[in-house]
Amino acid sequence: MKICLAQLNYRIGDFEANTRKISEAIQEARTAGADLVVFSELAVCGYPPEDLLDYPWFIEKCEQSLEAVAESCQGIAAVVGGVMRNHDDGRSLYNVACFMQNGRIEHVVRKTLLPSYDIFHESRYFEPSDSVQVIDFMGIRIGIAICEDLWDMYNDFRYRKSPVKTLKEAGAKLVIHPSASPFQLGKMQMREKVFEGNADRFELPVVYLNQVGAHTELIFDGRSAALNRNGDEIKQLPAFSEALEYIAFDGNDFFGQPVTEEPKEEIVLLHEALIFGLREYFAKMGFTKAILGSSGGIDSAVVQALATEALGAENVWPVLMPSQYSTDGSVADATTLSENLGNAYTIAPIRGIYDAYMECLSPVFANRPFDVTEENLQARARGMLLMAMSNKFGHILLNTSNKSEMAVGYSTLYGDLCGGLSVLGDVYKMKVYALARYINREKEIIPQVIIDKAPSAELRPGQKDSDSLPPYPLLDEILEFYVERRFGKDEITAEGYDHQTVDRIINLVNRNEYKRFQAPPILRVTKKAFGKGRLMPLVARYV
Amino acid sequence: MKICLAQLNYRIGDFEANTRKISEAIQEARTAGADLVVFSELAVCGYPPEDLLDYPWFIEKCEQSLEAVAESCQGIAAVVGGVMRNHDDGRSLYNVACFMQNGRIEHVVRKTLLPSYDIFHESRYFEPSDSVQVIDFMGIRIGIAICEDLWDMYNDFRYRKSPVKTLKEAGAKLVIHPSASPFQLGKMQMREKVFEGNADRFELPVVYLNQVGAHTELIFDGRSAALNRNGDEIKQLPAFSEALEYIAFDGNDFFGQPVTEEPKEEIVLLHEALIFGLREYFAKMGFTKAILGSSGGIDSAVVQALATEALGAENVWPVLMPSQYSTDGSVADATTLSENLGNAYTIAPIRGIYDAYMECLSPVFANRPFDVTEENLQARARGMLLMAMSNKFGHILLNTSNKSEMAVGYSTLYGDLCGGLSVLGDVYKMKVYALARYINREKEIIPQVIIDKAPSAELRPGQKDSDSLPPYPLLDEILEFYVERRFGKDEITAEGYDHQTVDRIINLVNRNEYKRFQAPPILRVTKKAFGKGRLMPLVARYV
Repeated sequence: MKICLAQLNYRIGDFEANTRKISEAIQEARTAGADLVVFSELAVCGYPPEDLLDYPWFIEKCEQSLEAVAESCQGIAAVVGGVMRNHDDGRSLYNVACFMQNGRIEHVVRKTLLPSYDIFHESRYFEPSDSVQVIDFMGIRIGIAICEDLWDMYNDFRYRKSPVKTLKEAGAKLVIHPSASPFQLGKMQMREKVFEGNADRFELPVVYLNQVGAHTELIFDGRSAALNRNGDEIKQLPAFSEALEYIAFDGNDFFGQPVTEEPKEEIVLLHEALIFGLREYFAKMGFTKAILGSSGGIDSAVVQALATEALGAENVWPVLMPSQYSTDGSVADATTLSENLGNAYTIAPIRGIYDAYMECLSPVFANRPFDVTEENLQARARGMLLMAMSNKFGHILLNTSNKSEMAVGYSTLYGDLCGGLSVLGDVYKMKVYALARYINREKEIIPQVIIDKAPSAELRPGQKDSDSLPPYPLLDEILEFYVERRFGKDEITAEGYDHQTVDRIINLVNRNEYKRFQAPPILRVTKKAFGKGRLMPLVARYV
Repeated sequence: MKICLAQLNYRIGDFEANTRKISEAIQEARTAGADLVVFSELAVCGYPPEDLLDYPWFIEKCEQSLEAVAESCQGIAAVVGGVMRNHDDGRSLYNVACFMQNGRIEHVVRKTLLPSYDIFHESRYFEPSDSVQVIDFMGIRIGIAICEDLWDMYNDFRYRKSPVKTLKEAGAKLVIHPSASPFQLGKMQMREKVFEGNADRFELPVVYLNQVGAHTELIFDGRSAALNRNGDEIKQLPAFSEALEYIAFDGNDFFGQPVTEEPKEEIVLLHEALIFGLREYFAKMGFTKAILGSSGGIDSAVVQALATEALGAENVWPVLMPSQYSTDGSVADATTLSENLGNAYTIAPIRGIYDAYMECLSPVFANRPFDVTEENLQARARGMLLMAMSNKFGHILLNTSNKSEMAVGYSTLYGDLCGGLSVLGDVYKMKVYALARYINREKEIIPQVIIDKAPSAELRPGQKDSDSLPPYPLLDEILEFYVERRFGKDEITAEGYDHQTVDRIINLVNRNEYKRFQAPPILRVTKKAFGKGRLMPLVARYV
């Protein structure tokens, strides 16, 4: 049996384009002599459709699209993911994979395990399946395990069911595994562990078919694969791009040398993922041009370099907005950066705007001393200028805050927290430095002085981040314990950190939930990003 | 058996205060001769704790608090809601109600039906119970049905289990129903329907014990009750306040005349709920003072009146920020409003700030014509001024956008969308008018001219909302079909609306998801508010 792995990039809700893409892949696979072609989870509607699933027209379109795709399955079979109605009691929908041939849907396999954690909300929409079925095709018994159905014991908890175990018991010889598995750092190792664990338990070959493409925050890397009974990858599809690949199945296993590609370093993956996420956001939103505030600091420098690679130098507009507290160095460094990247930049000093605000406010402020108010005013004047340019010319504002700052609230709401998309909101400060060094791997793109200088918001004379924050290496470690690993204060202190520092940092994180509530969507690259995958109460007492 | 209904206001995560409050209620009930005292769902930690449940220390505190409360149950029994660990496979937690007496937890009842829709995300945290148990107490068989466990068939879908049916079959004579059921318009009628339906099916008396208090967006109205076998309310606790009430149970039913209180009009409830939500947000956040932009329009007038009632006239600071496009009338009307309400107001004209922005931008804009950019600049200059005053003096900025505007994006991100809390974000424009009339029910508080004038953002000469939006009565109807009732375009058109108008409005709603993504938390008063209960993709194609 010749199997085609069709790793495609869908757009959520674009049934026409998705259906066309799927049907074309089916034609191509048939022409190439494939017997079966496999697509990803919820292929016809894209993943995740979220509350669009609450709209009956959306479900109708899903079902119609599945029917339409089935019609094109002549002389070839396909496994296509989608949504179907549940006409019985329980939640009104099923997450399904349709087995199609002879121009129709011959089997509907429903998902059993519904991920409901982090950015997954599947129990919100779907009724779980209470049975599995094995499909006979060309004399081979095929089991279909949709995404989480193969991950029953690799979570913080263990599911009470193992769909693959049941498939094995029902005589399956091959597992088709349509998925929508988002990229995150360390995910590749996690997937490997899952595939190895399943190979140990079931000795079943697996066709893993992941979606590729980004949807706002979520980056799907593709990197589908065919794995033999030992869990070795015999065929591997590329990361971050569409691909159709073929592999032969003899009824027993996949044969060939395991893929022995050197795993990429984390920083390389991070760099690729952010550029892909950026490019996808613009492409799918129909935007081409970006604008950002270029401060001469490391965060905006990295965002500017990433955006230039993603969108092209001519499509990135850096704006330098010095205030009376900006150092000459900052303007010079930002200028050099733009010259290195080939971005045409604008300088718009904010002094006049700042003065106008202070003049308007002086009767109210009545000589109260300079405090965070005046610092925020500068950040906000910049945000408003950038939004005005964005409005006038249609460039999309990129947010340049990093995860460390967002975590502790070292950012101004409606100021540097503005933007249509946050590029670094899931990247801790030390990783931002690593990105800068990686961007400079061949030549100096980001001026070394930007990497070397002490971080400063430059909102008052001589200000340094280290005046009010612990050193970033320490801060990032504690944040990772608290945000990603969900350690409490005592547990972090037990790891050898100073009690008062831990207390202070965690209190800052908690106190600043309100700012993150109004932050832009963040490209998600870790297992716990701020945003939709982290629901925290605002009004609460955090111990 | 004398039962105490303890309707209390908890703070999420404040175990010390919650535990103290519960223990004191137990003492008071014992002193009053009660045999059993009932508390609401997740009483020890407050509802909803959201992802705080992912932190092991939080769960430990929950379990410790339940133990501590149990110790105070001497000579009295109590039903107390909380969270406990699941030591078996499956999700790591249970949503439980503990039956306590003799100083210890004697029974742990787990919730079976886990609401996972709208603002509920319980499948994210809890393993469902797979059994129910009946508790013998003073010779009476008591069943405990936690919140959704009694709502098995009153949803858009029907659950596959009916815990109350199983309790009835197991011989229960009384149902204890600890809940966390948020307020929304029409919810009272919905609850009535549920209680009547259950009375028809099971003929079991019910002690309904709801939490009271607001947590950011969510307003819990309390209004607990004891219902007899016919589903009549024999005892009713107040809405929006704490209360301990007592009722006798003879082993068979509750006796007494059904409560015959005239149901309050919707506008009265809405008014009460918003004031309660506002007051709670400030009280629980430890804030006392509010600031808002007072434009002379209806939305800010209603917010100002509500805030004055919630926080006191001296704690509400209206700021009038006229631009060159503001009419004299607006300033005069806003002044009159503040005088009527007794709020000390400030006038801060934004012309100088606007000019400073335009001067800074003029080399960039190079004589391009006035467009939405300049309109937004005015809204944003106001937002920044309000935030500066908020920063300097500690007043919390109230957002004054209404639901109709938020829906169609007739609002400026980082401008009038600023604020710590949105008071009217779940109130359509026509309901804002109704609120204004209600506020004026005894005397003219909001100047009639504010109610009568044509709505205008006053961001360019002679601007009226009706220039670019359909009339509000029509707009609100279509929005309600789309947002609350989840009708599609064709279905709304089939209700008799003009196809093009429907298309235009729905496209506006879809295109503006990105603005709402960064909007403040919204006091939720309908069954579908923008915010955490409505997850919509940004990058998507909406048909």
